[in-house]
Amino acid sequence: MFDKLQTAFLNAQRVARLATADANGVPHVVPVCFALDSGQVYITIDEKPKTQHSRPLKRIRNILENPVVSLVADRYDEDWERLGWVMLRGTAEILEDGEEHDRAQEFLKSRYPQYAQMTLDELPVIAIRVSRVTNWGNLESGC
Amino acid sequence: MFDKLQTAFLNAQRVARLATADANGVPHVVPVCFALDSGQVYITIDEKPKTQHSRPLKRIRNILENPVVSLVADRYDEDWERLGWVMLRGTAEILEDGEEHDRAQEFLKSRYPQYAQMTLDELPVIAIRVSRVTNWGNLESGC
Repeated sequence: MFDKLQTAFLNAQRVARLATADANGVPHVVPVCFALDSGQVYITIDEKPKTQHSRPLKRIRNILENPVVSLVADRYDEDWERLGWVMLRGTAEILEDGEEHDRAQEFLKSRYPQYAQMTLDELPVIAIRVSRVTNWGNLESGC
Repeated sequence: MFDKLQTAFLNAQRVARLATADANGVPHVVPVCFALDSGQVYITIDEKPKTQHSRPLKRIRNILENPVVSLVADRYDEDWERLGWVMLRGTAEILEDGEEHDRAQEFLKSRYPQYAQMTLDELPVIAIRVSRVTNWGNLESGC
Protein backbone atom coordinates (compact mmCIF):
# COMPACT_ATOMS: atom_id res chain seq x y z
CA MET A 1 0.00 0.00 0.00
CA PHE A 2 2.82 2.41 0.92
CA ASP A 3 5.75 2.91 -1.40
CA LYS A 4 9.30 3.25 -0.09
CA LEU A 5 9.32 7.02 -0.02
CA GLN A 6 5.96 7.22 1.75
CA THR A 7 7.09 4.61 4.29
CA ALA A 8 10.36 6.42 5.00
CA PHE A 9 8.55 9.73 5.32
CA LEU A 10 5.94 8.33 7.71
CA ASN A 11 8.59 6.65 9.84
CA ALA A 12 10.50 9.92 10.08
CA GLN A 13 7.52 11.79 11.50
CA ARG A 14 6.94 11.60 15.24
CA VAL A 15 3.37 12.83 15.19
CA ALA A 16 0.46 12.58 12.80
CA ARG A 17 -3.07 13.93 12.89
CA LEU A 18 -6.07 11.63 12.98
CA ALA A 19 -9.37 12.80 11.55
CA THR A 20 -12.59 11.03 12.41
CA ALA A 21 -16.21 12.03 11.89
CA ASP A 22 -19.32 11.24 13.84
CA ALA A 23 -22.47 9.71 12.38
CA ASN A 24 -23.58 13.18 11.28
CA GLY A 25 -20.36 13.82 9.41
CA VAL A 26 -18.96 16.31 11.92
CA PRO A 27 -15.17 16.03 11.69
CA HIS A 28 -12.78 15.87 14.63
CA VAL A 29 -8.98 15.99 14.45
CA VAL A 30 -6.26 15.39 17.03
CA PRO A 31 -2.51 14.85 17.00
CA VAL A 32 -1.51 11.25 17.63
CA CYS A 33 1.61 9.19 18.09
CA PHE A 34 1.58 6.33 15.65
CA ALA A 35 3.54 3.42 14.27
CA LEU A 36 3.51 1.85 10.85
CA ASP A 37 3.98 -1.92 10.86
CA SER A 38 3.44 -4.26 7.93
CA GLY A 39 1.24 -1.73 6.17
CA GLN A 40 -0.98 -1.14 9.19
CA VAL A 41 -1.07 2.06 11.20
CA TYR A 42 -1.38 1.74 14.98
CA ILE A 43 -2.27 4.36 17.55
CA THR A 44 -2.45 3.64 21.22
CA ILE A 45 -5.10 5.13 23.44
CA ASP A 46 -2.97 6.27 26.32
CA GLU A 47 -5.83 6.70 28.70
CA LYS A 48 -8.64 4.43 29.72
CA PRO A 49 -11.26 4.65 27.00
CA LYS A 50 -14.10 4.35 29.45
CA THR A 51 -14.06 4.75 33.17
CA GLN A 52 -16.76 5.09 35.75
CA HIS A 53 -16.33 8.81 35.60
CA SER A 54 -15.87 9.72 31.99
CA ARG A 55 -17.10 8.96 28.53
CA PRO A 56 -14.78 7.38 25.99
CA LEU A 57 -12.61 9.77 24.04
CA LYS A 58 -14.38 11.50 21.17
CA ARG A 59 -12.09 9.82 18.58
CA ILE A 60 -13.25 6.43 19.92
CA ARG A 61 -16.91 7.38 19.99
CA ASN A 62 -16.60 8.59 16.39
CA ILE A 63 -14.88 5.39 15.24
CA LEU A 64 -17.62 3.31 16.83
CA GLU A 65 -20.23 5.36 14.95
CA ASN A 66 -18.28 5.74 11.71
CA PRO A 67 -15.06 3.75 11.27
CA VAL A 68 -13.75 5.59 8.21
CA VAL A 69 -10.77 7.75 9.19
CA SER A 70 -8.00 9.81 7.60
CA LEU A 71 -4.52 10.39 8.93
CA VAL A 72 -1.94 12.86 7.72
CA ALA A 73 1.76 13.11 8.55
CA ASP A 74 3.46 16.20 7.23
CA ARG A 75 6.62 18.22 7.32
CA TYR A 76 6.44 21.97 7.77
CA ASP A 77 9.46 24.08 7.01
CA GLU A 78 9.84 27.80 6.39
CA ASP A 79 11.47 26.75 3.12
CA TRP A 80 8.29 25.78 1.33
CA GLU A 81 10.28 23.70 -1.14
CA ARG A 82 10.52 21.21 1.73
CA LEU A 83 6.80 20.97 2.51
CA GLY A 84 5.35 17.52 2.10
CA TRP A 85 2.71 15.21 3.43
CA VAL A 86 1.39 11.68 3.25
CA MET A 87 -2.31 11.16 3.88
CA LEU A 88 -4.06 7.87 4.20
CA ARG A 89 -7.64 6.83 4.39
CA GLY A 90 -8.83 3.62 5.93
CA THR A 91 -11.15 1.85 8.29
CA ALA A 92 -10.33 1.96 11.97
CA GLU A 93 -10.71 -1.03 14.18
CA ILE A 94 -10.34 -0.96 17.94
CA LEU A 95 -8.21 -3.80 19.26
CA GLU A 96 -8.79 -4.52 22.94
CA ASP A 97 -6.44 -7.47 23.25
CA GLY A 98 -4.94 -10.34 21.29
CA GLU A 99 -1.74 -10.94 19.40
CA GLU A 100 -1.98 -7.98 17.01
CA HIS A 101 -2.88 -5.67 19.90
CA ASP A 102 0.12 -6.83 21.94
CA ARG A 103 2.49 -6.58 19.01
CA ALA A 104 1.28 -3.06 18.23
CA GLN A 105 1.78 -1.93 21.82
CA GLU A 106 5.29 -3.36 21.84
CA PHE A 107 6.10 -1.63 18.59
CA LEU A 108 4.72 1.69 19.84
CA LYS A 109 6.80 1.35 23.01
CA SER A 110 9.93 0.73 20.97
CA ARG A 111 9.23 3.77 18.81
CA TYR A 112 8.33 6.06 21.71
CA PRO A 113 10.53 5.57 24.80
CA GLN A 114 8.06 7.86 26.58
CA TYR A 115 5.57 4.99 26.63
CA ALA A 116 7.97 2.93 28.75
CA GLN A 117 6.70 4.85 31.76
CA MET A 118 3.10 3.91 31.04
CA THR A 119 1.20 0.69 31.36
CA LEU A 120 -0.16 0.27 27.88
CA ASP A 121 -0.87 -3.44 27.90
CA GLU A 122 -4.46 -3.15 29.00
CA LEU A 123 -5.26 -0.18 26.82
CA PRO A 124 -6.81 -0.51 23.40
CA VAL A 125 -5.13 0.22 20.12
CA ILE A 126 -6.63 1.82 17.04
CA ALA A 127 -5.60 -0.17 13.96
CA ILE A 128 -6.16 1.55 10.63
CA ARG A 129 -6.79 -0.80 7.73
CA VAL A 130 -5.44 1.43 5.01
CA SER A 131 -7.37 1.60 1.76
CA ARG A 132 -5.76 4.58 0.04
CA VAL A 133 -2.58 6.61 0.31
CA THR A 134 -1.86 9.96 -1.29
CA ASN A 135 1.03 12.35 -0.97
CA TRP A 136 1.96 15.86 -1.93
CA GLY A 137 5.10 17.91 -2.13
CA ASN A 138 8.58 16.93 -1.12
CA LEU A 139 8.97 13.63 0.74
CA GLU A 140 12.76 13.43 0.39
CA SER A 141 14.70 13.43 3.64
CA GLY A 142 17.49 15.81 4.45
CA CYS A 143 17.05 17.99 1.42
CA MET B 1 -14.27 32.57 21.54
CA PHE B 2 -10.52 32.07 22.07
CA ASP B 3 -8.94 32.87 25.41
CA LYS B 4 -5.54 34.57 25.65
CA LEU B 5 -3.56 31.37 26.03
CA GLN B 6 -5.31 29.68 23.10
CA THR B 7 -4.79 32.77 20.95
CA ALA B 8 -1.09 32.98 21.78
CA PHE B 9 -0.64 29.27 21.15
CA LEU B 10 -2.41 29.40 17.79
CA ASN B 11 -0.43 32.44 16.70
CA ALA B 12 2.81 30.66 17.60
CA GLN B 13 2.04 27.70 15.33
CA ARG B 14 2.97 28.01 11.66
CA VAL B 15 0.87 25.11 10.47
CA ALA B 16 -2.44 23.56 11.47
CA ARG B 17 -4.40 20.61 10.14
CA LEU B 18 -7.83 21.05 8.63
CA ALA B 19 -10.31 18.19 8.77
CA THR B 20 -13.34 18.15 6.52
CA ALA B 21 -15.79 15.38 5.68
CA ASP B 22 -17.82 14.69 2.58
CA ALA B 23 -21.58 14.21 2.52
CA ASN B 24 -21.08 10.56 3.47
CA GLY B 25 -19.03 11.45 6.53
CA VAL B 26 -15.69 10.34 5.07
CA PRO B 27 -13.04 12.49 6.74
CA HIS B 28 -10.14 14.20 4.98
CA VAL B 29 -7.25 16.03 6.64
CA VAL B 30 -4.46 18.21 5.28
CA PRO B 31 -1.88 20.60 6.73
CA VAL B 32 -2.71 24.25 6.15
CA CYS B 33 -1.20 27.64 6.71
CA PHE B 34 -3.64 29.79 8.60
CA ALA B 35 -4.19 33.12 10.28
CA LEU B 36 -6.36 34.05 13.21
CA ASP B 37 -7.93 37.48 12.96
CA SER B 38 -10.70 38.87 15.15
CA GLY B 39 -11.75 35.39 16.20
CA GLN B 40 -11.97 34.09 12.63
CA VAL B 41 -9.60 31.56 11.12
CA TYR B 42 -8.52 32.11 7.52
CA ILE B 43 -6.85 29.71 5.12
CA THR B 44 -5.93 30.64 1.62
CA ILE B 45 -6.31 28.29 -1.30
CA ASP B 46 -2.96 28.74 -2.92
CA GLU B 47 -3.97 27.19 -6.17
CA LYS B 48 -6.89 27.80 -8.47
CA PRO B 49 -9.86 25.98 -7.00
CA LYS B 50 -11.20 25.03 -10.38
CA THR B 51 -9.48 25.11 -13.69
CA GLN B 52 -10.33 23.74 -17.08
CA HIS B 53 -8.15 20.76 -16.35
CA SER B 54 -8.78 19.82 -12.74
CA ARG B 55 -11.48 19.46 -10.18
CA PRO B 56 -11.53 21.71 -7.14
CA LEU B 57 -9.42 20.55 -4.22
CA LYS B 58 -11.00 17.84 -2.10
CA ARG B 59 -11.15 20.16 0.93
CA ILE B 60 -13.24 22.59 -1.11
CA ARG B 61 -15.52 19.92 -2.51
CA ASN B 62 -16.09 18.63 1.03
CA ILE B 63 -16.86 22.10 2.38
CA LEU B 64 -19.40 22.66 -0.37
CA GLU B 65 -21.08 19.36 0.55
CA ASN B 66 -20.67 19.65 4.32
CA PRO B 67 -19.42 22.95 5.76
CA VAL B 68 -18.67 21.72 9.28
CA VAL B 69 -14.90 21.52 9.80
CA SER B 70 -12.36 21.00 12.56
CA LEU B 71 -8.89 22.43 12.79
CA VAL B 72 -6.12 21.53 15.20
CA ALA B 73 -2.84 23.29 15.91
CA ASP B 74 -0.49 21.38 18.13
CA ARG B 75 3.00 21.29 19.54
CA TYR B 76 4.96 18.06 19.48
CA ASP B 77 8.06 17.72 21.60
CA GLU B 78 10.00 14.67 22.76
CA ASP B 79 9.42 16.03 26.26
CA TRP B 80 5.81 15.03 26.54
CA GLU B 81 5.28 17.55 29.33
CA ARG B 82 5.31 20.11 26.51
CA LEU B 83 2.66 18.50 24.32
CA GLY B 84 -0.37 20.64 23.73
CA TRP B 85 -3.06 21.40 21.21
CA VAL B 86 -5.93 23.71 20.45
CA MET B 87 -8.78 22.33 18.36
CA LEU B 88 -11.68 24.28 17.00
CA ARG B 89 -14.87 23.35 15.30
CA GLY B 90 -16.81 25.65 13.06
CA THR B 91 -18.56 26.25 9.81
CA ALA B 92 -16.42 26.97 6.79
CA GLU B 93 -17.37 29.60 4.28
CA ILE B 94 -15.59 30.16 1.00
CA LEU B 95 -14.89 33.81 0.30
CA GLU B 96 -14.28 34.55 -3.38
CA ASP B 97 -13.88 38.30 -3.04
CA GLY B 98 -14.98 41.29 -0.99
CA GLU B 99 -13.58 43.21 1.93
CA GLU B 100 -13.18 40.30 4.33
CA HIS B 101 -11.54 38.20 1.60
CA ASP B 102 -9.05 40.95 0.78
CA ARG B 103 -8.26 41.62 4.44
CA ALA B 104 -7.69 37.91 5.07
CA GLN B 105 -5.32 37.62 2.11
CA GLU B 106 -3.36 40.65 3.31
CA PHE B 107 -3.14 39.22 6.79
CA LEU B 108 -2.00 35.83 5.48
CA LYS B 109 0.66 37.54 3.36
CA SER B 110 1.93 39.45 6.38
CA ARG B 111 2.12 36.24 8.45
CA TYR B 112 3.75 34.17 5.70
CA PRO B 113 6.39 36.06 3.69
CA GLN B 114 6.38 33.05 1.34
CA TYR B 115 3.03 34.21 -0.01
CA ALA B 116 4.63 37.45 -1.21
CA GLN B 117 5.84 35.52 -4.26
CA MET B 118 2.33 34.41 -5.13
CA THR B 119 -0.65 36.22 -6.52
CA LEU B 120 -3.27 35.47 -3.91
CA ASP B 121 -5.70 38.25 -4.66
CA GLU B 122 -7.87 36.29 -7.04
CA LEU B 123 -7.80 33.09 -5.02
CA PRO B 124 -10.53 32.20 -2.55
CA VAL B 125 -10.16 32.08 1.20
CA ILE B 126 -11.69 29.59 3.58
CA ALA B 127 -13.13 31.45 6.57
CA ILE B 128 -13.98 29.32 9.59
CA ARG B 129 -16.81 30.67 11.72
CA VAL B 130 -15.72 29.14 14.98
CA SER B 131 -18.38 27.64 17.22
CA ARG B 132 -16.31 25.72 19.74
CA VAL B 133 -12.73 25.66 20.99
CA THR B 134 -11.10 23.00 23.12
CA ASN B 135 -7.54 22.48 24.25
CA TRP B 136 -5.40 19.86 25.88
CA GLY B 137 -2.02 19.70 27.54
CA ASN B 138 0.52 22.44 27.86
CA LEU B 139 -0.15 25.66 25.97
CA GLU B 140 2.51 27.74 27.74
CA SER B 141 5.27 29.10 25.55
CA GLY B 142 8.93 28.57 26.18
CA CYS B 143 8.48 26.12 29.02
